[in-house]
Amino acid sequence: MYSSETIIRVRYAETDRMGYVYYGNYAAFFESGRVEALRALGLSYREMEEQGIMLPVLSFNIKYYKPAFFDDILTIRTSVKEMPSGTRIHFHYETLNEKKVTINEGETTHAFLSGGRPVAVPQVVIDKLGVFLVKKPQ
Amino acid sequence: MYSSETIIRVRYAETDRMGYVYYGNYAAFFESGRVEALRALGLSYREMEEQGIMLPVLSFNIKYYKPAFFDDILTIRTSVKEMPSGTRIHFHYETLNEKKVTINEGETTHAFLSGGRPVAVPQVVIDKLGVFLVKKPQ
Amino acid sequence: MYSSETIIRVRYAETDRMGYVYYGNYAAFFESGRVEALRALGLSYREMEEQGIMLPVLSFNIKYYKPAFFDDILTIRTSVKEMPSGTRIHFHYETLNEKKVTINEGETTHAFLSGGRPVAVPQVVIDKLGVFLVKKPQ
Amino acid sequence: MYSSETIIRVRYAETDRMGYVYYGNYAAFFESGRVEALRALGLSYREMEEQGIMLPVLSFNIKYYKPAFFDDILTIRTSVKEMPSGTRIHFHYETLNEKKVTINEGETTHAFLSGGRPVAVPQVVIDKLGVFLVKKPQ
Repeated sequence: MYSSETIIRVRYAETDRMGYVYYGNYAAFFESGRVEALRALGLSYREMEEQGIMLPVLSFNIKYYKPAFFDDILTIRTSVKEMPSGTRIHFHYETLNEKKVTINEGETTHAFLSGGRPVAVPQVVIDKLGVFLVKKPQ
Repeated sequence: MYSSETIIRVRYAETDRMGYVYYGNYAAFFESGRVEALRALGLSYREMEEQGIMLPVLSFNIKYYKPAFFDDILTIRTSVKEMPSGTRIHFHYETLNEKKVTINEGETTHAFLSGGRPVAVPQVVIDKLGVFLVKKPQ
Repeated sequence: MYSSETIIRVRYAETDRMGYVYYGNYAAFFESGRVEALRALGLSYREMEEQGIMLPVLSFNIKYYKPAFFDDILTIRTSVKEMPSGTRIHFHYETLNEKKVTINEGETTHAFLSGGRPVAVPQVVIDKLGVFLVKKPQ
Repeated sequence: MYSSETIIRVRYAETDRMGYVYYGNYAAFFESGRVEALRALGLSYREMEEQGIMLPVLSFNIKYYKPAFFDDILTIRTSVKEMPSGTRIHFHYETLNEKKVTINEGETTHAFLSGGRPVAVPQVVIDKLGVFLVKKPQ
């Protein structure tokens, strides 16, 4: 498994009138975790886009166990649990609060697109992840 | 099945640099659909909160089929497919673009909370939904 | 003066833990007012962009008199008070609550850009606004 | 002058279809700068709120010189230029990109509120700022 951690300080803007982080804002927190997980591998999502590769989200699931609050320091633990194959990649996320309690868990599935069409997972992604994950037999 | 439709005009603020509605923004669109679905039933979510009942989100799932763009007029079709029982309620959502094509589908599960503790679905909610849905045998 | 009104229903997502609409969210509400004010004139901002004209914001000022709350129906009154000249246009905004009380006032200044460079206000904008505003002597 | 710097990595969620950081998002970036500027002084905005003191925004002004882009590392330089007196405080903000170019400048004015009413600037705020700023003669 490949895993990486990103720290997020909750903004007032991200809370709602219940005092909780609004449930939709975790999508941006997970994006942050995903981008940093790729960067820690040596992959820049910005550069991938500049080279014409995009990673739109195909699905997003999240289960909320506990709320987060203004000024909390959250840890987003982002993992790739299996080597991507075909044209897709899956990310798993866990949000931990300052007491290291898991307050929610989620996952996203993404397609690799080039010129608007699905393309095979780029070799560089396979190579970087290959240090941590076993390549699937073809 | 109880179903209701809400119209949303996509704001520039809601797009990202791909030109798509950012994937996390559908959480707010679905909230809008949910609040309007309750209002069409004669239930005000604001009043429920003022009476001490809250409906935090326990889970959120969404599958994206096609993107939406700036200035698009989207229809959020919100449904309650089965009578809520116990302390929870499920909502289903479908987003349609101007060509009436379904561009994504999702669902949320909510707990009814009062004073921070789960409580039975309020009778008024059961009664209003009872016009459209069969009550589950106890 | 040219003036137009747009209605916005406040989303839960747009509130903060004070229970107020977060101060930064009025930027998106004013964008909505601006886009609808142009549409009411017969001008589509989306089409302008598709023709290569962009209107980035150069400045934004807002004074807050009263808060807005979840589920409030707000009226954004957007005005163009003087005929744009040179490469810029100014919009004024007033947000009214359900009691028709002005809860904030703001303004934005925008440049007309084409290919990344400032260009003269398009003739079609001058013509449409000319019905309401006196053209400035050159 | 009291001054403090906060680093922000631009999220995809914060860009718009022009590829720029949406103009309204700087309100949240400045909030982040403000909260960190207070924290660096030894003041927790969260604790202030828990003690019943709130700091709603009375006005917000910003001038945009250049855009920011996805994945940019921005520096928010937050300053208090004069000792607050009466019931208000002013913050100034400068956003710098990775080349240390100022891409926008803004300011916010806030009221100190307790129980919904304006109150004098708390003594602890005066004391902490007094290390950097001269107290106004009464």
